[in-house]
Amino acid sequence: MKHCFHILGQWVRHSHLAPLTGLHRISACISSTSQQYIKARDPEWGSKQQKEKRSSILRNLSKMDPQIEAELAPFRASVKEQGDLVRKLKSEKAPDIDLQRAVAELKHRKRALEEKELALTPKDDFDRGKMEDLLKQRFFYDQSFAIYGGVNGLYDFGPMGCAVKANLLQTWRKFFILEEQMLEVDTAMLTPEVVLKASGHVDRFQDYMVKDLKNGECFRADHLIEAHLEKLLVDKKSSDEVKEAIRQILPMIDGMSKDDMGECLRKYNMKSPVTGNDLSDPMEFNLMFATSIGPTGQLKGFLRPETAQGIFVNFKRLLEFNAGKLPFAGAQIGNSFRNEISPRSGLIRVREFTMAEIEHFCDPDHKDHPKFADIALLEFPLYSACNQMDGKPPELIKIGDAVKTKLVANETLGYFMARIYLFLTKVGVDSKRFRFRQHLSNEMAHYACDCWDAEMKTSYGWIECVGCADRSCYDLTQHTKATSVKLAAERKLPEPKTISVYECVPEKGGLGKAFKKDAKAVTAHLTGLSGDELSTLEQTLQDKGEAEIQVDGQKFTVKKEMVSFKKYDKTIHVEEIVPSVIEPSFGIGRIMYSVFEHNFKVREGDEQRTYLTLPPIIAPYKCSLLPLSNNPDFASFIKQLSQQLTELDVSHKVDDSGGSIGRRYARTDQIAIPYGITIDFDSLKTPHTATLRERDTLKQVRAPIEELPEIVRDLAVGRRTWENVLNNYPLFEQQEASSK
Amino acid sequence: MKHCFHILGQWVRHSHLAPLTGLHRISACISSTSQQYIKARDPEWGSKQQKEKRSSILRNLSKMDPQIEAELAPFRASVKEQGDLVRKLKSEKAPDIDLQRAVAELKHRKRALEEKELALTPKDDFDRGKMEDLLKQRFFYDQSFAIYGGVNGLYDFGPMGCAVKANLLQTWRKFFILEEQMLEVDTAMLTPEVVLKASGHVDRFQDYMVKDLKNGECFRADHLIEAHLEKLLVDKKSSDEVKEAIRQILPMIDGMSKDDMGECLRKYNMKSPVTGNDLSDPMEFNLMFATSIGPTGQLKGFLRPETAQGIFVNFKRLLEFNAGKLPFAGAQIGNSFRNEISPRSGLIRVREFTMAEIEHFCDPDHKDHPKFADIALLEFPLYSACNQMDGKPPELIKIGDAVKTKLVANETLGYFMARIYLFLTKVGVDSKRFRFRQHLSNEMAHYACDCWDAEMKTSYGWIECVGCADRSCYDLTQHTKATSVKLAAERKLPEPKTISVYECVPEKGGLGKAFKKDAKAVTAHLTGLSGDELSTLEQTLQDKGEAEIQVDGQKFTVKKEMVSFKKYDKTIHVEEIVPSVIEPSFGIGRIMYSVFEHNFKVREGDEQRTYLTLPPIIAPYKCSLLPLSNNPDFASFIKQLSQQLTELDVSHKVDDSGGSIGRRYARTDQIAIPYGITIDFDSLKTPHTATLRERDTLKQVRAPIEELPEIVRDLAVGRRTWENVLNNYPLFEQQEASSK
Repeated sequence: MKHCFHILGQWVRHSHLAPLTGLHRISACISSTSQQYIKARDPEWGSKQQKEKRSSILRNLSKMDPQIEAELAPFRASVKEQGDLVRKLKSEKAPDIDLQRAVAELKHRKRALEEKELALTPKDDFDRGKMEDLLKQRFFYDQSFAIYGGVNGLYDFGPMGCAVKANLLQTWRKFFILEEQMLEVDTAMLTPEVVLKASGHVDRFQDYMVKDLKNGECFRADHLIEAHLEKLLVDKKSSDEVKEAIRQILPMIDGMSKDDMGECLRKYNMKSPVTGNDLSDPMEFNLMFATSIGPTGQLKGFLRPETAQGIFVNFKRLLEFNAGKLPFAGAQIGNSFRNEISPRSGLIRVREFTMAEIEHFCDPDHKDHPKFADIALLEFPLYSACNQMDGKPPELIKIGDAVKTKLVANETLGYFMARIYLFLTKVGVDSKRFRFRQHLSNEMAHYACDCWDAEMKTSYGWIECVGCADRSCYDLTQHTKATSVKLAAERKLPEPKTISVYECVPEKGGLGKAFKKDAKAVTAHLTGLSGDELSTLEQTLQDKGEAEIQVDGQKFTVKKEMVSFKKYDKTIHVEEIVPSVIEPSFGIGRIMYSVFEHNFKVREGDEQRTYLTLPPIIAPYKCSLLPLSNNPDFASFIKQLSQQLTELDVSHKVDDSGGSIGRRYARTDQIAIPYGITIDFDSLKTPHTATLRERDTLKQVRAPIEELPEIVRDLAVGRRTWENVLNNYPLFEQQEASSK
Repeated sequence: MKHCFHILGQWVRHSHLAPLTGLHRISACISSTSQQYIKARDPEWGSKQQKEKRSSILRNLSKMDPQIEAELAPFRASVKEQGDLVRKLKSEKAPDIDLQRAVAELKHRKRALEEKELALTPKDDFDRGKMEDLLKQRFFYDQSFAIYGGVNGLYDFGPMGCAVKANLLQTWRKFFILEEQMLEVDTAMLTPEVVLKASGHVDRFQDYMVKDLKNGECFRADHLIEAHLEKLLVDKKSSDEVKEAIRQILPMIDGMSKDDMGECLRKYNMKSPVTGNDLSDPMEFNLMFATSIGPTGQLKGFLRPETAQGIFVNFKRLLEFNAGKLPFAGAQIGNSFRNEISPRSGLIRVREFTMAEIEHFCDPDHKDHPKFADIALLEFPLYSACNQMDGKPPELIKIGDAVKTKLVANETLGYFMARIYLFLTKVGVDSKRFRFRQHLSNEMAHYACDCWDAEMKTSYGWIECVGCADRSCYDLTQHTKATSVKLAAERKLPEPKTISVYECVPEKGGLGKAFKKDAKAVTAHLTGLSGDELSTLEQTLQDKGEAEIQVDGQKFTVKKEMVSFKKYDKTIHVEEIVPSVIEPSFGIGRIMYSVFEHNFKVREGDEQRTYLTLPPIIAPYKCSLLPLSNNPDFASFIKQLSQQLTELDVSHKVDDSGGSIGRRYARTDQIAIPYGITIDFDSLKTPHTATLRERDTLKQVRAPIEELPEIVRDLAVGRRTWENVLNNYPLFEQQEASSK
């Protein structure tokens, strides 16, 4: 149950250490693994007919070259063999332990396949070090508190990163909140323990760690064990016997209990990899940052580990705001916190991060979506649970077909998957390095009926950036249990229904006098009694004149005159339902990182000229203004253009620093400025013109100065294409100098 | 020193419990109060000539009616009398204790004057309860975790509050960051202790509290003492003697030490006002939320109490980003946290809050501002320290004159004050309920040379919403001291200067070999030696061949061959300076609250119809779309208008819920929607037209449907006035139904 803190915006890419025993959301972890296999949807869903139909619409996505496919074939076969075994064990209801072993081995084989696939993918010359240099040097982001030595897992965004982030969030807000008329909230990050107890985070949001007994340094137990064993595996001194044993253990690490881990640590005599000191036994470490709210120390609190709970606890207010009607979506952009034991992988795994989450509340029996037709024909790679178990690659499928064949559980889920895909590609994710991966039945939370992660391929492998899950009614139910506040909506009945009502009507005055401050709790207890309990109570009161009841462990004596009983028929037009929740959840830092990787380029023939092809919509500035030289006549043109661009809300940067125009272009390319206007000597002639350059094509046109602000505005907001500009203005042909 | 946690965005309105012994920023509290009087600028600044000039340009702002002025006269005289005494004591360098007493009394009299003034102000019918009902009911904001019983000092913004907040921040970002080309950062909230130790927050960001010894409930000591004494003062059982003693003590509470408070508690036998239980002695309570970063528990951290420190620790990167040039401004929008002992006053005093802070770094000797001329003629009420001590009201002064006469310390400070004023009135602050209050010399941090708070008049009295201070070089110096990282900039010398250099050049190889991991520290030590130390070292090495040095308490033996010495002349063109910082700091929640109060209205003759006159720029939606009835022919017009408004980025709300048009207008007025388009039966005729209604004037025009989206867009962004629309389209005269 180690990897089950699978919080969006912040999951580790566990398909490598794959989360087969992990659950999508810790808040819903269940203790018995076997339960998951029983409850969760099996990948072998659907009728034979449906399966055939699905096959017919699926086209193979990979288009790998035959030689690569030949090399992968044994890996694929090995996954399939194990996938079949898992299915067989499940259908036979085999003992838990056998199933667990089989699943661990399946996970191991899947991982081997994925690693092989990545290794065989033609190299694309991407140099992470070079990109990180650029991002650091132009202050997109960097480690926090560096002058104090830095803190792992904390990052500061500089002016460029901050502008990209603000643009990304602004785009998100327009794309989701405004276009879909969602209800945005902005809720407290400080969260009292009781709320996170109900959501499951207090009990289960944890990792196992071990401590260096001398200096107190901590390590994640699973990482340490894995690294140690893998070292032994390639150690010449290890006997074949030892190596064989290790090969048996390695795939099991993720499924290990605390005791298993302790045993393993002792068996192989593991020490701190840093100091060689002895290590403690494994211990649970809750990943939430704890603090105390108020001065008494009596109200324990945490920094929220996700923004979702802030929406759930406001459900009643939001439903009311929406005039009591379903469906509606709550949304929130904000920071969450996770006290990683040993954070690494840059922006991908951090202790403080921004998320954007949507909770779409809908009728559990009607998950169709009115706008589904708008996106039904959209296709993108789906990596189904079925394909994962069969060792097959993802497939390009129209989302309409995926919902029709029940590969994707319902229209609303499918609609959001399509919107997620459209959003991500709009902000610069490369659609060729994108896939939706379905959770296997055993990594999905027991209450969820379907879950797909939008994954981006980066130099760290496939990383999860957005999750999209149907969470059913889990969270609302949990908070209702904890608070006794009914978090439910009303659904109109197809036709009115007559029901017989049997109820207890407390006499407020009498109860208040008798029980004072407890009167409210007693009243709630009395009005909440079931039919049988009611009739027992009524009988007792009739017989003895009083009855003893127990509320929250306290005893109260209710007298006959304090209550009356009513029986009558009632016609009802609505029934109460607990809404289902479809949750798209975005990890903003991870999306930003993927976008940076997908857009980092080096100019052909000039290793020094690195640049970023960010789409104008998220580029920090939309336009640069460059006087060719420091000729004083240029200044007034620059000033005028700057004013006009400001009026049109086009963010821009004036670079009058001198230096060759080629060097300055190179600098603006590094901070992803898509368009550049240069005032040169021809600009001084009437009619006044200037050149306009596009970052990716390096092409330039010459256009009248007074037209340029609107051209750039239209390009920046996507109202006009660069091709259109090229067709309407004369090309300006002048070789750009290199950066040297 | 009790009220000295005076953090922006979050200060308490202490002019009531006035912060005469408080400092503007805890980070700079100095322990000896007397020091402040010596160092800080006295209100009696300037030459006689300057004073006369100032008097001539000042006009009396208050325009009170003569009767009110007559009632205030004795209060004003009483303040002035005491102000003069304080000045006299200061000029005579009187003992601390006498000065402290005089200042406490001055504070008390100022408070009495302000309370009298507020009491005499004609009542404006504002009903806070009614406004809070509206804000709650339409979910602008409400208490967090209410279904769990709520947590004091934490608030959740609902869809309407969230939209207002997002619009406010977006406006702020355009108004400051884009227009002034500031460098925005987004830094970690989790902050290691060492950083906040350097800034002064660990040692001084605190209040005194007392605990109920039985149930642990906590109270702010000063509040509790004050409430208890004021109760005794009106108690008939108190003797005249007791009352007189209390009158002596009351004005002194703010200046009390921990021991003074303890004594006072015991003397008057104070108990918990809630339970009557005994109380603990007063104890310091640090207002930061503490937590632990990482799993070891060894890295203590806090949630940041202000966003400013995140800018200071990034100073080097930002300076580099700005090509090493001054001036430039860093800016940050983000949340900060303060663990209030007993929060109250709604949004004004909370435990988690959003700030927007600017740190403008400039040459300490050149604080002029290139755009000052643009705003020099702007005038707004300035409540100078001098006027405060003289019992005089604020005065309307042109900022250009205020800087010219040195009332405001420099152009940059004055420029930001003007920009703050323009921003606040743009987002809906009533300029008649606005003033800038200067800090008295004894409430200003010792390093600050001037500080002005933008205060808004609300039903809670005058509350501070934005601070604007010249903080000199304090913060950068503190972080340099703590880290040894030089946080400085270079200034070009008027002419090159030749200096003689004497330096020690370490031989890296030799040092590395000898001192391994300590080589870096040894090298830093050697290159940091002063001239005298160098010559001693050189001599010793020459004489003995080796020398012992001490680095961080450790001893090292340096051999002759490990270093060489150089003496030469060097021409330098730049000198190093530590920049001054001008800091405008905005409390977003307080601004929002003031804007709500200043814009809450009730329709004449209809008590039920409350509404908000928020300016379009921050209104949650800019426009409503209302079909007059559920006639199916109206729907296509609504859909088309909605699409066009979306294309123009105009947020809008369709209300096709039925109900009379009057009721629906009333609903849209409550959420401050400034414009409403109604499709009625005349819309069906060609040419198609619809009505456009404005919220504040209630006037309506009829205009062609195809023109309406652009009209609304232009109105919403301020490109067109409502008067202009009234002049160009025929008035639609139809009485609006009341809400009943």
